[in-house]
Amino acid sequence: MKPVSILTLRRLSQYLQVILEAKKEKQEYISATTLEKATGVHRTQVRKDLASTGVVGVPKRGHKVDELALAISEFLNWNDSTEAFLVGAGNLGSALMGYRDIFETKGMKILAAFDNAPDLIGTKIHDVPVFAMEKFSNLAQRLHVHIGIVTVPPEAAQPVVDMMLDSGILAIWNFAPVQLVTPEDIIVEDVDLYASLAVLSQRLAVKLMKKTE
Amino acid sequence: MKPVSILTLRRLSQYLQVILEAKKEKQEYISATTLEKATGVHRTQVRKDLASTGVVGVPKRGHKVDELALAISEFLNWNDSTEAFLVGAGNLGSALMGYRDIFETKGMKILAAFDNAPDLIGTKIHDVPVFAMEKFSNLAQRLHVHIGIVTVPPEAAQPVVDMMLDSGILAIWNFAPVQLVTPEDIIVEDVDLYASLAVLSQRLAVKLMKKTE
Repeated sequence: MKPVSILTLRRLSQYLQVILEAKKEKQEYISATTLEKATGVHRTQVRKDLASTGVVGVPKRGHKVDELALAISEFLNWNDSTEAFLVGAGNLGSALMGYRDIFETKGMKILAAFDNAPDLIGTKIHDVPVFAMEKFSNLAQRLHVHIGIVTVPPEAAQPVVDMMLDSGILAIWNFAPVQLVTPEDIIVEDVDLYASLAVLSQRLAVKLMKKTE
Repeated sequence: MKPVSILTLRRLSQYLQVILEAKKEKQEYISATTLEKATGVHRTQVRKDLASTGVVGVPKRGHKVDELALAISEFLNWNDSTEAFLVGAGNLGSALMGYRDIFETKGMKILAAFDNAPDLIGTKIHDVPVFAMEKFSNLAQRLHVHIGIVTVPPEAAQPVVDMMLDSGILAIWNFAPVQLVTPEDIIVEDVDLYASLAVLSQRLAVKLMKKTE
């Protein structure tokens, strides 16, 4: 498997949603033009992206829906579940645990959550057991867990991540709105809600200002 | 206020986190070099980004922390709260309502949530009242609400957004993993968790494969 750009990965994930819909509706073939209509990505780019997964289409008909769904899923590593530990079982952490089944179909299994709050430790949230923070390191090493999900408040994020890396975690899914400091070979994928909100607010402000000009 | 790139907005939001930390610690000045260290953005870029907010630094000392915090907040429209309605009071919707106070300091006030589930309607989640879906349109128009937050399942997202646009919503913060179809002048900011997970999974797969080669 060769690395492709992050934008390609994001687009492949979007195509896959459309392809799985087509599969539900028992369509046999799907074309780059259909994917263009559904995702807004130009068909030339669609074809390029699909080619990176190694599948070959049928001229004039497009791709077999089943084959394409499988090829993209495999390419995105969604058939091979990787185990994850989540730290921070508050609002956002609980919401993510609620998506556990969907995440599992996409290759990530949340095995356990960790928190400091005594009233959470020992409970289950959406069927995911919550342990005390001090259990993280031992469990992560014994179970060879590779993904750490960070849903703690900003000030706690860096210490949590340092602890994760000491415990053998290789990839961090970070929901805390901070820039993490990690070695270069560690994979960090940030979901920065505040940055996203900043973009939304500022674009809306510009728009409202234009309206009143 | 002139539009700047989305990347600049995201970076400004990151600088602001660092600047607010410095403010808490009663620092008087902050330099582009300090911001580079904290965010990993090269100081030349930092200076360019800060300049877009109109603030001017002091040679050798940097920027006054108070002035800079205010300038960025204003630039990001975070001092001017814009009201939002949220649709879909499930896991993720509830989590976002839990961040209500933080979002408010960042310029967005969640006034109310809407859902179809009879057991949610009439309740409050993190102090936000939950109404029946059919109340959305009337309330949004009467209160001139501009932002719609979409935290419904993927198949419900497009109909919800159509209803939002019919009710005068101008900006959509979309958490459903679908490509929305909207008129060009509508602002859409997507937070696609599945795409983010796809990027993480695939990069981890490549890394693990290299390890075993």
